[in-house]
Amino acid sequence: MSKTMSEKILARASGKKNVEAGDIVIANIDVAMTHDLTGPLSVQSFNEIGTEKVWDPSKIVIPFDHQVPADSIDSATNHIIMRKFVEEQNIENFYDVNAGVCHQILPELGHVVPGEVIVGADSHTCTHGALGAFSTGIGSTDMAMVFSEGKLWFKVPETNRFEISGQLNDNVYAKDVILNIIGQVGADGSTYKACEFAGETVSNMSVSDRMVLSNMAIEMGGKTGLVEPDEKTIEYVKARSNKPYKLFKTDLDAPSLNIIDIDVSDLEPQVACPHNVDNVKPVSEVDVEIDQVFLGSCTNGRLSDLRDAARILKGKTIAKGTRMLVIPASKEIYMKALDEGLIKIFVEAGALVSAPCCGPCLGGHTGLIGAGEVSLSTSNRNFKGRQGSPEGEVYLSSAAVAAASAIEGKIVVPQ
Amino acid sequence: MSKTMSEKILARASGKKNVEAGDIVIANIDVAMTHDLTGPLSVQSFNEIGTEKVWDPSKIVIPFDHQVPADSIDSATNHIIMRKFVEEQNIENFYDVNAGVCHQILPELGHVVPGEVIVGADSHTCTHGALGAFSTGIGSTDMAMVFSEGKLWFKVPETNRFEISGQLNDNVYAKDVILNIIGQVGADGSTYKACEFAGETVSNMSVSDRMVLSNMAIEMGGKTGLVEPDEKTIEYVKARSNKPYKLFKTDLDAPSLNIIDIDVSDLEPQVACPHNVDNVKPVSEVDVEIDQVFLGSCTNGRLSDLRDAARILKGKTIAKGTRMLVIPASKEIYMKALDEGLIKIFVEAGALVSAPCCGPCLGGHTGLIGAGEVSLSTSNRNFKGRQGSPEGEVYLSSAAVAAASAIEGKIVVPQ
Repeated sequence: MSKTMSEKILARASGKKNVEAGDIVIANIDVAMTHDLTGPLSVQSFNEIGTEKVWDPSKIVIPFDHQVPADSIDSATNHIIMRKFVEEQNIENFYDVNAGVCHQILPELGHVVPGEVIVGADSHTCTHGALGAFSTGIGSTDMAMVFSEGKLWFKVPETNRFEISGQLNDNVYAKDVILNIIGQVGADGSTYKACEFAGETVSNMSVSDRMVLSNMAIEMGGKTGLVEPDEKTIEYVKARSNKPYKLFKTDLDAPSLNIIDIDVSDLEPQVACPHNVDNVKPVSEVDVEIDQVFLGSCTNGRLSDLRDAARILKGKTIAKGTRMLVIPASKEIYMKALDEGLIKIFVEAGALVSAPCCGPCLGGHTGLIGAGEVSLSTSNRNFKGRQGSPEGEVYLSSAAVAAASAIEGKIVVPQ
Repeated sequence: MSKTMSEKILARASGKKNVEAGDIVIANIDVAMTHDLTGPLSVQSFNEIGTEKVWDPSKIVIPFDHQVPADSIDSATNHIIMRKFVEEQNIENFYDVNAGVCHQILPELGHVVPGEVIVGADSHTCTHGALGAFSTGIGSTDMAMVFSEGKLWFKVPETNRFEISGQLNDNVYAKDVILNIIGQVGADGSTYKACEFAGETVSNMSVSDRMVLSNMAIEMGGKTGLVEPDEKTIEYVKARSNKPYKLFKTDLDAPSLNIIDIDVSDLEPQVACPHNVDNVKPVSEVDVEIDQVFLGSCTNGRLSDLRDAARILKGKTIAKGTRMLVIPASKEIYMKALDEGLIKIFVEAGALVSAPCCGPCLGGHTGLIGAGEVSLSTSNRNFKGRQGSPEGEVYLSSAAVAAASAIEGKIVVPQ
């Protein structure tokens, strides 16, 4: 019987021959991720359950990224709680304050391979679907159960498959594609659906670019954001992981599949306007002065983003009255950006470059905005107050739009 | 009549022929500095005074360094207040979030020349005395009066002149000298005294190293920390400033002068132990494991410090369980460290490098410690709770001790 990727992966993980959308399954978890911000509640709940040891320490990954280095005594306390848990439970896959953003370092350091079921106590865990894994965000208390049992129940989702065709114009990127899709379908346009990104445009994308699409599946309500694994996926994974993987693809006649055709041939650079991710407009229709630009995050803090921005910023100066914050998404990216001279380009242009972390994305620390201020951010959410004051405004764009806009002090189309 | 540097500078600045220790003078201010943390109260008090315009916008310098990039909505609000003030008052010497630590960028960007009277709404304003200026920290409300009138009263201080002799051993630095002095005289050993640092050891020091001495004068109660200007001073200043300067030296028979001889020939690397700066011991007598190392601040975040640390860290790895945070003190230093490959050495060793700011020094944000944690820091204060939890501990050392200790995970003498 014809099935979607999600159905096939969840069948494998729950030891069943066939499952279909709507079924409740109990799946074995291949990777469980929690970080410094959501971890302490998971640990507390795990302790309340009373299980002495986690089901499999080798399958747990704990990066510190949300509030690093510790920005308060509370954060420092959270870090201590998590370091103690890591030691008690012999969790080898622990990445302290100097590693990077969870959704970047999980695939980068070989913790994600196709066909797995991955859960993370973070909503953008859907990112890893870009490698053909069923990957989704769960709550901290659900994570405690995973720590204890290694299993979690799922309702098998239906699938919205976005068949994307067309060659992207210059200065149009995966971020513009996903913003455009979210703008079209709305913030509830894929609620509890597995979002698949397919078609020639996606085939032509790098794994990094595919992660941008998958990362934002949650912004249209998606349970996960999938890309069928291909040679690019396999090349990426083999360079980073020794784990066995399994390739699943969607049967195009699967009953639970809904195909949505998207043509991006004429797509212009896009921007999500305050205060919702689906309030998307072409950049050309927006005329807004900006106080701060943030280049980074699990959405667009990758090497390709830094390169795109550096190409635009090289030899230029950031507008007076505008500040720019660049935060590479991982240590590996930071090192490559150093070697390629990108960090120097940013600092010479007047940006400040911080060590890998989530930065202002979640409004936790590092680069918050005040009342009346406007942030242009390459991250994934622009909700009221997301990056600081609820009286501030956040716009979302690609790295290229962010860089070009930093030079002009207002949101502009890169030339 | 024989006079000290302080008496001569304050006589010049108050338009008197002679002043002597104990006199109250009203001095014209040459440079007034306030930053993002102390500035908002100065601005509020200035507005309460009711003067419309500051006395001379060209003499005011406002850097953002304590909470940059903004780590909270409150910080972002402070920044907005200060940017508005800067614009209203036409203050050209404004340095937003990407410039560096005030006490480094003032001399570096040519705002400090010998013979000036400089006040800053920050206790370590004494740093600039290293260039032969009378420079001291004042309160935010005093600063409001300076903004309004361009003058401030001072009681002319007596002088403690530390005549330092002897060649420093390998791996012994200006930081070890000043820690040793503070250990000897105590935290109240120079209360309201001008501290002068003189002698062959100081003559042999670079301007950067002299700043380390002057920076910590306040930690023994000093009103300022002076070094008589020499060719090195003039070379430093001429490369950075077009301002006229005036060279003052202390007459060694001045009545208000107290000379203290210090021989540093046999000095070992020093460490200030919790919770007071004068609780100083040789590193060799201390056996303490550390959780965090901070290399940076207005005391030891200069290029020479980064070079000293990088030489030790090159090809090495920071101990498991220890984290290291490197924060160059200014954009200029950051750029040079980039060009010299120092940033790469730090990141490869496992440190994280943040954009220039005060970092964890004041416990504001970025790298706070939790209960039970131990920080080894190249900054200037180790008071209870200074870098986070009051149940944490802070040790102070040179950059070399910090780097060597990061590798070992405990406080050690550099080899």
